[in-house]
Amino acid sequence: MALLDDLKWRYATKAYDPTKKVSKENIDKIIEAARLAPTSSGLQPFRIVVVEDKELKEKMVPGSLNPECMRECSHVLVFAAWDLYTNERIDQVYDRITDERGLPRGRFSRYTDQIKEMYSKQSAEEHFVHTAHQSYIGLGIALAQAAELRIDATPAEGFDSKVIDEVLGLPEQGLRSVSLMYVGYSDKERDWLAPMKKVRVPKDEFVIEAA
Amino acid sequence: MALLDDLKWRYATKAYDPTKKVSKENIDKIIEAARLAPTSSGLQPFRIVVVEDKELKEKMVPGSLNPECMRECSHVLVFAAWDLYTNERIDQVYDRITDERGLPRGRFSRYTDQIKEMYSKQSAEEHFVHTAHQSYIGLGIALAQAAELRIDATPAEGFDSKVIDEVLGLPEQGLRSVSLMYVGYSDKERDWLAPMKKVRVPKDEFVIEAA
Repeated sequence: MALLDDLKWRYATKAYDPTKKVSKENIDKIIEAARLAPTSSGLQPFRIVVVEDKELKEKMVPGSLNPECMRECSHVLVFAAWDLYTNERIDQVYDRITDERGLPRGRFSRYTDQIKEMYSKQSAEEHFVHTAHQSYIGLGIALAQAAELRIDATPAEGFDSKVIDEVLGLPEQGLRSVSLMYVGYSDKERDWLAPMKKVRVPKDEFVIEAA
Repeated sequence: MALLDDLKWRYATKAYDPTKKVSKENIDKIIEAARLAPTSSGLQPFRIVVVEDKELKEKMVPGSLNPECMRECSHVLVFAAWDLYTNERIDQVYDRITDERGLPRGRFSRYTDQIKEMYSKQSAEEHFVHTAHQSYIGLGIALAQAAELRIDATPAEGFDSKVIDEVLGLPEQGLRSVSLMYVGYSDKERDWLAPMKKVRVPKDEFVIEAA
């Protein structure tokens, strides 16, 4: 029951101790968990931008709903999704897959032709909804990894993505910010949520047994 | 490193052994992990529909891209998100939160007024994009839980949500299907992906160190 214990332990930390840093080794593990996360067609259409620099975090404050978390956390992980699916991006992924498996390139071309055809009919905004979806799988798994390591974290949306994107130069990289994950160690004295009971929808409402 | 090991172990199973069933206890653990997953404002705007019945699965086959997985897996978990944010739904969640914490109802009304105001300006489709996002956090965590239990699973999109929604009567419950998670035990002889190397984007491409 390790994961369930980790999930019970974690909560969205509301105040960080600015004197405590998360080790590089642990940041790497959190990112590695997101990197291993499954995604649609294995395309992994998102990246994680790691922000540790104080000045850079300060530049992101105007775009953030949680200025204290932004300033006082150890690291900010910015989940940024592809702005588009393109044939080149799809081919790059599948060339790597075949190369690493020792298969001829094009081995999965019937499948990749299908997904290229499907995405070619969709708008850029539809692409981004879908790439963002995939990034949330990674976010969930990254939060679980932080919890396993007993590192505090806060998933955050509702920020001004234009500010974040510009500060980090994401458009030039074909990326758009989707969510933030503040990472660090809670300052329990200022963290109002720390002592509060975790509340979830009851099981019998959450689960629907189809019949 | 337990979670990382679990993530390395798992893959999107392509063929299930129809004779092997996942125990109710383990299905409950997978669902419990998703129930504990964090969501925006703690609203948990999604539900899991559990489908085990053969006839019901057969009715979902025409909407599915993986007919064999649908038929042969032990259980199908359908992640279904709220079609809308409404004031009533938000109040219901926050009344439960305050009740369970022994706080007066309305304790978080400044915050809930803000989110009600925000959602009132958005379209139903914008709501659904956001509720679906939250369900993907739960999907990621449910997949991690299945892996911890060494239960095979396949996350699936690309299905015909109209078929799935109608078969399960989701619209009447204010829900729309977002993703499927097939759960069971792989039939290694027919599962072409089982012996293949897991391939992911290299770390140095996945991570962007902001500076």
